[in-house]
Amino acid sequence: MTRAEQLRAIWTPRSVAVIGASANPQSLGRAVFANLLFAGYSGCVYPVNMKARSVLGVRAYPRVTDIPDDIDLAVVLVPAGFVPQVLKDAGRKGVRGAIVISAGFKEVGGEGIELEQQLEVIAQTYEMAIVGPNCFGAINTDPNVSLNATFSRNFPLAGKIAFISQSGAVGVSALEYAAGEKIGFSKFVSIGNKVDVHENDLLEILADDPMTEVILLYLEALENPKEFVNLALKISEKKPILAVKSGRTKEGAKAAASHTGALSGSDEAYDSLFAQCGVLRVETLEELFRYGIAFANQPLPRGPRVAIVTNAGGPGIMATDAAVRHKLDLASLEPKTKTILKSDLPSTVSLKNPIDLIGDADESRYQLAMQAVLADENVDGVIVICVPQMATNLESMSSTIVKQARFSDKPVFAVYMATGDIQKSLQILEEAHIPHYRFPEDAVRAMGAMVRYDRWRKRPRTEVKHFDDVQPDKVRAIIEKARSEKRRFLPEPEAYEILSAYGLPMSRTKLVHDEKAAVAAATEIGFPVAMKIVSPNIVHKVDVGGVILNLCSESAVRHAFSELMGQVKAATQDVPIWGVLIQEMVLGGKETILGMKRDPLFGGLLMFGLGGIYVEVFKDVTFRIAPIRELSARSMIERIKGIELLKGFRGEPPCDLDAIAQSLLRLSQLVTDFPEIEEMDINPLIVLPAGSGARVVDARILIGD
Amino acid sequence: MTRAEQLRAIWTPRSVAVIGASANPQSLGRAVFANLLFAGYSGCVYPVNMKARSVLGVRAYPRVTDIPDDIDLAVVLVPAGFVPQVLKDAGRKGVRGAIVISAGFKEVGGEGIELEQQLEVIAQTYEMAIVGPNCFGAINTDPNVSLNATFSRNFPLAGKIAFISQSGAVGVSALEYAAGEKIGFSKFVSIGNKVDVHENDLLEILADDPMTEVILLYLEALENPKEFVNLALKISEKKPILAVKSGRTKEGAKAAASHTGALSGSDEAYDSLFAQCGVLRVETLEELFRYGIAFANQPLPRGPRVAIVTNAGGPGIMATDAAVRHKLDLASLEPKTKTILKSDLPSTVSLKNPIDLIGDADESRYQLAMQAVLADENVDGVIVICVPQMATNLESMSSTIVKQARFSDKPVFAVYMATGDIQKSLQILEEAHIPHYRFPEDAVRAMGAMVRYDRWRKRPRTEVKHFDDVQPDKVRAIIEKARSEKRRFLPEPEAYEILSAYGLPMSRTKLVHDEKAAVAAATEIGFPVAMKIVSPNIVHKVDVGGVILNLCSESAVRHAFSELMGQVKAATQDVPIWGVLIQEMVLGGKETILGMKRDPLFGGLLMFGLGGIYVEVFKDVTFRIAPIRELSARSMIERIKGIELLKGFRGEPPCDLDAIAQSLLRLSQLVTDFPEIEEMDINPLIVLPAGSGARVVDARILIGD
Repeated sequence: MTRAEQLRAIWTPRSVAVIGASANPQSLGRAVFANLLFAGYSGCVYPVNMKARSVLGVRAYPRVTDIPDDIDLAVVLVPAGFVPQVLKDAGRKGVRGAIVISAGFKEVGGEGIELEQQLEVIAQTYEMAIVGPNCFGAINTDPNVSLNATFSRNFPLAGKIAFISQSGAVGVSALEYAAGEKIGFSKFVSIGNKVDVHENDLLEILADDPMTEVILLYLEALENPKEFVNLALKISEKKPILAVKSGRTKEGAKAAASHTGALSGSDEAYDSLFAQCGVLRVETLEELFRYGIAFANQPLPRGPRVAIVTNAGGPGIMATDAAVRHKLDLASLEPKTKTILKSDLPSTVSLKNPIDLIGDADESRYQLAMQAVLADENVDGVIVICVPQMATNLESMSSTIVKQARFSDKPVFAVYMATGDIQKSLQILEEAHIPHYRFPEDAVRAMGAMVRYDRWRKRPRTEVKHFDDVQPDKVRAIIEKARSEKRRFLPEPEAYEILSAYGLPMSRTKLVHDEKAAVAAATEIGFPVAMKIVSPNIVHKVDVGGVILNLCSESAVRHAFSELMGQVKAATQDVPIWGVLIQEMVLGGKETILGMKRDPLFGGLLMFGLGGIYVEVFKDVTFRIAPIRELSARSMIERIKGIELLKGFRGEPPCDLDAIAQSLLRLSQLVTDFPEIEEMDINPLIVLPAGSGARVVDARILIGD
Repeated sequence: MTRAEQLRAIWTPRSVAVIGASANPQSLGRAVFANLLFAGYSGCVYPVNMKARSVLGVRAYPRVTDIPDDIDLAVVLVPAGFVPQVLKDAGRKGVRGAIVISAGFKEVGGEGIELEQQLEVIAQTYEMAIVGPNCFGAINTDPNVSLNATFSRNFPLAGKIAFISQSGAVGVSALEYAAGEKIGFSKFVSIGNKVDVHENDLLEILADDPMTEVILLYLEALENPKEFVNLALKISEKKPILAVKSGRTKEGAKAAASHTGALSGSDEAYDSLFAQCGVLRVETLEELFRYGIAFANQPLPRGPRVAIVTNAGGPGIMATDAAVRHKLDLASLEPKTKTILKSDLPSTVSLKNPIDLIGDADESRYQLAMQAVLADENVDGVIVICVPQMATNLESMSSTIVKQARFSDKPVFAVYMATGDIQKSLQILEEAHIPHYRFPEDAVRAMGAMVRYDRWRKRPRTEVKHFDDVQPDKVRAIIEKARSEKRRFLPEPEAYEILSAYGLPMSRTKLVHDEKAAVAAATEIGFPVAMKIVSPNIVHKVDVGGVILNLCSESAVRHAFSELMGQVKAATQDVPIWGVLIQEMVLGGKETILGMKRDPLFGGLLMFGLGGIYVEVFKDVTFRIAPIRELSARSMIERIKGIELLKGFRGEPPCDLDAIAQSLLRLSQLVTDFPEIEEMDINPLIVLPAGSGARVVDARILIGD
């Protein structure tokens, strides 16, 4: 049986057995069975209960194997200790999918961990997709299915949003919130401890699900981040994915670890990962839904230019503030729009954006304004704000908005700054899929998120560049030599050989062993030079007086050689010395740092930043997961805060950004080809003015055990 | 009549005339009159209408002067053109206060501006407090008054929050929102165009109003920012003030200008101003209220340590994430608390903070946990999260929370991640003044705002230090001389004399006129020296080759003198040259920038930052309004992002922060004493290691016309 077939049993089973169904009104077994039975499920549902003859009037069976029908999905609610046995029964019965709602597994530790391992084995042995354990179940609102295999208090409305939640409780509150806000779902699943089925499995199904247009995720950890990136990259081309990834902060991550037993990657890594694959990361569930309804129901704006139509100045200003904060532009209206507004609206109306229709505006004034701005070439989206006043009839207002939006391919967002008796008006908007918000800020942020996504979709497509001029054999030889000597740290000459083998731009260097050779090397390289100690035991050369810079003459080199040796010997305890590196001083450039850290989940995490204090004090760096595409290399560079410094600050010549990008791409290929490389720093890569390239001036590489 | 008496007529009139009251169901005149009549107003209300004999059954009068009773407050709804006349009538009648709801004044321009000026004159002539025009009215929920002089759809609940809104529409939506969320107000007023009564007048009343415990503001511009700061400073000691100041962003400010005709100060200035006087600036109305209900109803936390009690892991993690993001600390529970939790709760409960009581927690489990953490010395506030599950009875839960919170002087915040049929449960919380939220993030942010305010209240109290060793006469003479010569720019020697007269730490300099004197000065000052051109016409010396640094010898000075003169002559057109400044090179310090810009509203805005690219690229600066207190000088320094650089980065000695603080305080006194100083930069002030002081190494001063 293919994995896809197994997974399909979760959301579209033809028959369901509820193992642990019960008539006890306090039990989950009753809640789940009742939900399945009463939600209008189109298949057959069977209660499995050791003792009862029937549950809620439906013939019950003591074991799943007793059911005289094929079963696609088993929903399991028995105590944890019994779960392996009932799942084995189900497996023998040929059940393709199971949802284990029961808790008491990995999350409680001890015996629970072992029980959970048994589930993993069962999933493999019986080729069964297992959701959970410790989860809240799954829902499919497709009217051809109508599956509610949860203990939710309500069956959600049908809609275009799919929601995957790692936390059952967050799933519960999401359903509650959605019910309150009349937000519809296509599919819902709580994946709990993820013993078998995890977010990537489900993303694959949702990618092709015609009922789903937006995917919302609540995750505490990713199961397989690399696979996630590839999947999300593909899916985001068609459908937006929005995610809350919690356990974001250090303290949060601690709580996550104890909650799911999962090891979270660093948060920067997650930020990078989401940015890389077009997933919109948001902070709160509220944002998730506020953006979700906009994505699900409105066309994407073609750009960031928003028109604001309002019947009150204050909220218009608030919307404008928010627009600037969330990187939207206030559209400059076309002259023709202004002409229309001027001729058809009262003279007190403001013809600038925000268009203030004044407090006595009725729906006809809104209609004129909306029609004009929706037809305006300079407008990408419209936010309609209405504060209820004497002239306002909110129901007519809703109908007007719906009518205007219907004829447009631009997104429209309604803001009704009202509460109380406005259900009917909101319903008119909801039926026509116009997202509505309580405050201008919310509409602005939703449009802002859509613009970000649209921009990502329209990004220039680039590939992972493969350099053919690299010499992996050389690298392999160096790593093997280090391993044979049980060294993890590769001193500069080795690091340079590796980087050079992958075509990174190197400064001129020479390893020497005595004063005379030092002088000769300096003369050959050209003054001024730097002199550095080389030892497999000295990772931080400066700390032991192992670096002397700016040597301008033969005599300076001669003098420095013995000074250096003296300092190092005084500071260290008889460490092996490989020699002294003579290196050209690269002048007239800017210091940058390129690095890589191997993350247990993500693999190679590349870093770029300005060197020195910019990294250490301002933490002005960007991350991407290797391998990176050409565009990613560019955006790693462009997205540091201090980018101005590299672009020609205060009349300085701009730096060679191409050279940095090429270096990042080559570094990416190197760390992808050699997973043995655990950690590395090129610090600094000195970047020269445009056209003059860059030079690696120091580097350290650590390899794994 | 005192101003206070006039203002009291707005909120506590004994009799009200509604000028423009009407029986027409579509009119504002009806809406306002009906609101006054039906809200249970404790005084007498009289309709004034030229034609009607009665309005809503109440005897009407053609003019206010016809009313056979004293009138405290007139509410005016007649068309703009008639407003001056009816106000004059009111003035003659001895009316002390007026609320002009009518629009058509400054906000429409043209004739409206002139009409508004008439109102200003009337207010002064008749000693009448005029609110508006173009406003939404005023409300006082005090049961002894029950005044609803607005056209609001609902009379708000009584509560401890006062709300002042510059925008009528924002006032309307605030009342709508508050009604939906059951938020109570003490007083409400929409101040509209602020022709006479503005926020400062009302703040003064609210300061002593026993019904008001929290003040919320929505402002688009401040009338008198300096007075506001002083008032808010005083009030914030007793009552928190929270403010949305919109027109925040550049585009927003543009809209604000066209809306209120007011000139907004720069946004950084507002941020500084609010920070300086303890006002919590927030972004959105939603935040304003979410924080407001917490401030109004809960004790302030004594510190940032939060305990989170939850029945679900996911929301606990979300709360933890939010806590870190909003600068709360997760409380480390006392051993005694852990012992209690361990002995009284099931073994599966997590004893770490967040305390996860697990999905089957009922109210008794919550009660135990709340009791324990509220008694814990390490806990400053408690967030109780409940996701409705099988075992949850939300009403009992509410009663439990109320009971526990009642015995504690720590704030408690409830998060019910539920919607639907939970009104009753929420009401129990509301009656006991427990703020409740839908998502953990909201509760965390509310507590975060309270912690910020508490920290401000507990800040060490410092005074504006007055230096007696200053020589204002010297400064005055220099400024007068420049003015007599029609110069706005003061070249270095003058700027130095001014700074020196106020005791700023100067580098050694000497103004010379020929090569020989240059050499003598350099020898006297000591090598190395810098050489700079001095001309009243050259503001940017470097741009014309007017600066040569690091001259190490007599011959270097000699050579540089002619080089400098040559360069300047080549780059400029026959400008007057006062001479050449020889200046010591101050070595071994860090560059900082101190500056002042005179803002039309705020007065002297002081700036501090790291010099050079930190200012220009990272915009790493702080602002305060002069005069500053000692603590403000400290926080200007401490709050730059790059503060690490000054505190001894990478083993460097820490800089002399005291010297910076003293310089800022002296600068503050200087620009306060001399409002003629329009703009100045000390760039750089080089700060030496602690104990060694700082030196002004360049400065430019511009004086006003």
